[in-house]
Amino acid sequence: MKVFKYPTEPEWESILRRPVLDHSSLRGTVQEIMDQVKQRGDDALRDYTLRFDGITVDHFEITGDEINAAVQKVSAELKTAMQQAAANIRRFHEAQVQQPEVIETMPGIRCWRSAVGIEKVGLYIPGGSAPLFSTVLMLGIPAMIAGCREIILCSPPDKQGNLHPAVIYAAQLTGINRIFKVGGVQAIAAMTYGTASIPAVFKIFGPGNQFVTAAKQLAQQSGVAIDMPAGPSEVAVFADDTANPDFVAADLLSQAEHGIDSQVILVTTSEQLIGRVQESISNQLNSLPRKDIAAGALANSSIILVRHEAEAMDLLNRYAAEHLILSCERAESLAAKVINAGSVFIGHYSPESAGDYASGTNHTLPTNGYATAYSGVSLDSFVKKITFQQLSDDGLKNIAKTVTVMAYEEGLAAHARAVEVRINN
Amino acid sequence: MKVFKYPTEPEWESILRRPVLDHSSLRGTVQEIMDQVKQRGDDALRDYTLRFDGITVDHFEITGDEINAAVQKVSAELKTAMQQAAANIRRFHEAQVQQPEVIETMPGIRCWRSAVGIEKVGLYIPGGSAPLFSTVLMLGIPAMIAGCREIILCSPPDKQGNLHPAVIYAAQLTGINRIFKVGGVQAIAAMTYGTASIPAVFKIFGPGNQFVTAAKQLAQQSGVAIDMPAGPSEVAVFADDTANPDFVAADLLSQAEHGIDSQVILVTTSEQLIGRVQESISNQLNSLPRKDIAAGALANSSIILVRHEAEAMDLLNRYAAEHLILSCERAESLAAKVINAGSVFIGHYSPESAGDYASGTNHTLPTNGYATAYSGVSLDSFVKKITFQQLSDDGLKNIAKTVTVMAYEEGLAAHARAVEVRINN
Repeated sequence: MKVFKYPTEPEWESILRRPVLDHSSLRGTVQEIMDQVKQRGDDALRDYTLRFDGITVDHFEITGDEINAAVQKVSAELKTAMQQAAANIRRFHEAQVQQPEVIETMPGIRCWRSAVGIEKVGLYIPGGSAPLFSTVLMLGIPAMIAGCREIILCSPPDKQGNLHPAVIYAAQLTGINRIFKVGGVQAIAAMTYGTASIPAVFKIFGPGNQFVTAAKQLAQQSGVAIDMPAGPSEVAVFADDTANPDFVAADLLSQAEHGIDSQVILVTTSEQLIGRVQESISNQLNSLPRKDIAAGALANSSIILVRHEAEAMDLLNRYAAEHLILSCERAESLAAKVINAGSVFIGHYSPESAGDYASGTNHTLPTNGYATAYSGVSLDSFVKKITFQQLSDDGLKNIAKTVTVMAYEEGLAAHARAVEVRINN
Repeated sequence: MKVFKYPTEPEWESILRRPVLDHSSLRGTVQEIMDQVKQRGDDALRDYTLRFDGITVDHFEITGDEINAAVQKVSAELKTAMQQAAANIRRFHEAQVQQPEVIETMPGIRCWRSAVGIEKVGLYIPGGSAPLFSTVLMLGIPAMIAGCREIILCSPPDKQGNLHPAVIYAAQLTGINRIFKVGGVQAIAAMTYGTASIPAVFKIFGPGNQFVTAAKQLAQQSGVAIDMPAGPSEVAVFADDTANPDFVAADLLSQAEHGIDSQVILVTTSEQLIGRVQESISNQLNSLPRKDIAAGALANSSIILVRHEAEAMDLLNRYAAEHLILSCERAESLAAKVINAGSVFIGHYSPESAGDYASGTNHTLPTNGYATAYSGVSLDSFVKKITFQQLSDDGLKNIAKTVTVMAYEEGLAAHARAVEVRINN
């Protein structure tokens, strides 16, 4: 990790710069796959699944028998863990349910908002080395609470044409029973345009590689909503003299193992902590199965020594980390100063991995500085808040002049007439 | 208006089809302007302002003197109307403020969300024939309630280099005092990249023509958030035998006057209402200042006769109108069946124009079927909901096994270690 000691504020920008994410070179390839699926439907899905996943899939939708067989394969220990995680995630997201509150803005004018689940949503779960069954819980549970009527899940098959049993079990646990063995750009295309096997949806959620990310961008331009723009995962840790170097090192490594493009930043007011964390990283790194990935990510990561907490918070708000860990004495009061972050972990006993899996908060969070303007996934992501208003005869009279004066001034006479025709009736 | 009597469900799709919105042909032009502003800053803004608005602007930011002069020019009657509208909008949006609620998902694990205003937001207000000061209220008021620290407003100057006084007054009324005389693609570019005069923002709000819409799409691809994708404004009215044909006609005309690309749909269970509404439209149309525009929009609009209310609601949920007016006897119970709409107006005395200006609800709403997945602008649009979690030593112990079992199964050992290093300490 590169160490920057007391950089000046004008230097922050270059220190905090993220690698440029440019998917434009993939656009042509991705567009071609999207177009083929739009035109040729399931046939195109079969061709791409053979080409990219190396397997011929006849029926994309998983059967009840396949689901039962997969559920049998998951160990009792993992089932118990997933049930506990699901219970916490459900509790946290159920607390986000809002009942409509009617506001009488003027006598006879009642206005309210009502949250209605998005009718059709699609969840994408990547395949590959790490089966992300935790993401199934993070997306499936709020989708069910929101009351989305049609929830489908797409994930790429392995070389035997199967999905990881834990992914299927997680889907079962959340109540999702339409699961499709299709991945990559072709899965995003299927959920965007619909095929004979796979229904089109109104919003697509879930992580993916750069091809999937580019496909989601194209889906968005076609009018399908997406959860948020994506980038490599990242953590920023603020640590002071009270921080345990082993805890800090473990937190940095847990982010670094995600991928060599992961980003890890340590901001500290303690010069002596720096060496200790570096030493602990060296000690812990060798025993990690994914040590090469973690070492690669750390090579692009930074340790920044700052003068005081206020400077640390200015710098961290500038960075807008996906995950922000406050490993320091006054963690609670610093948390109140966070303006830009996806999810904040307060104190020495709140590692990111608690939130990644099981504390109850959502792990689908804004990366790449998007925390300046975007929230992580929550119940809100699966509903639309529709506004309603009901005016009585008297209510309309009370507001008539206000509306007509403004409408005429904006040059929209018919807007005024819609009020006048009622008042004059 | 075209009349469709008892169409079958397979026919709905073609009847409800909206004109295709394809901005791709504008992309080149718009990209060029965006690039020029990115590279040349204020100089490019001056060049484009001269070219498109026909005026040389030295200082883009409006001075205090200009603001005071504009405020003097607004009539007392209009000020009173805008103050009343602002009070209602403020009341409705203040009720959307949520206090953080701490959820203890397990003993020793406290999780919550906190809404933090987006630091820097930009509001775009179009110029042209109709000065949309009402949109200043609709965007400025929730931005102020959200606590956004930097709120700027851009709007194109007229041929004399001024903004409409009511736009400036509306900004004053909401507390916005950084107002810039720049419009079109160049304004969106300035808010995306920043120039010497105009700061870059994290999220851009507001309506605009197809060039502005295309510019906002490009801004979004550059990482700046936008309020929502845009399309022509539209209304759907459901009316039964109890509806007053003059009210219905006035509502249809109030939407039709927006632009010749506006969309207007009447769905009814009453065959005899159709002729009466058509007759009333003919009568009311001639006295409208914008009758040519309204007539153009009506030529592309439809009246659909359905068998019963349930069919009407199915059809209307399929359409997903920006504005939905329920002019019928059982309006309240039908409102509970709305799944897809931006804003719903219940009963005979709730014209769309009430919500457009002054009832308190927001008028920035999803068009073009986006109501299937998007909400209108609200306080939510101006905040990020950051998640926080704080685990005690015991809390981490309670969840340790759940996290480590799941992390190892996903192949992410360092995630498990971040818990173990703490537990074993």
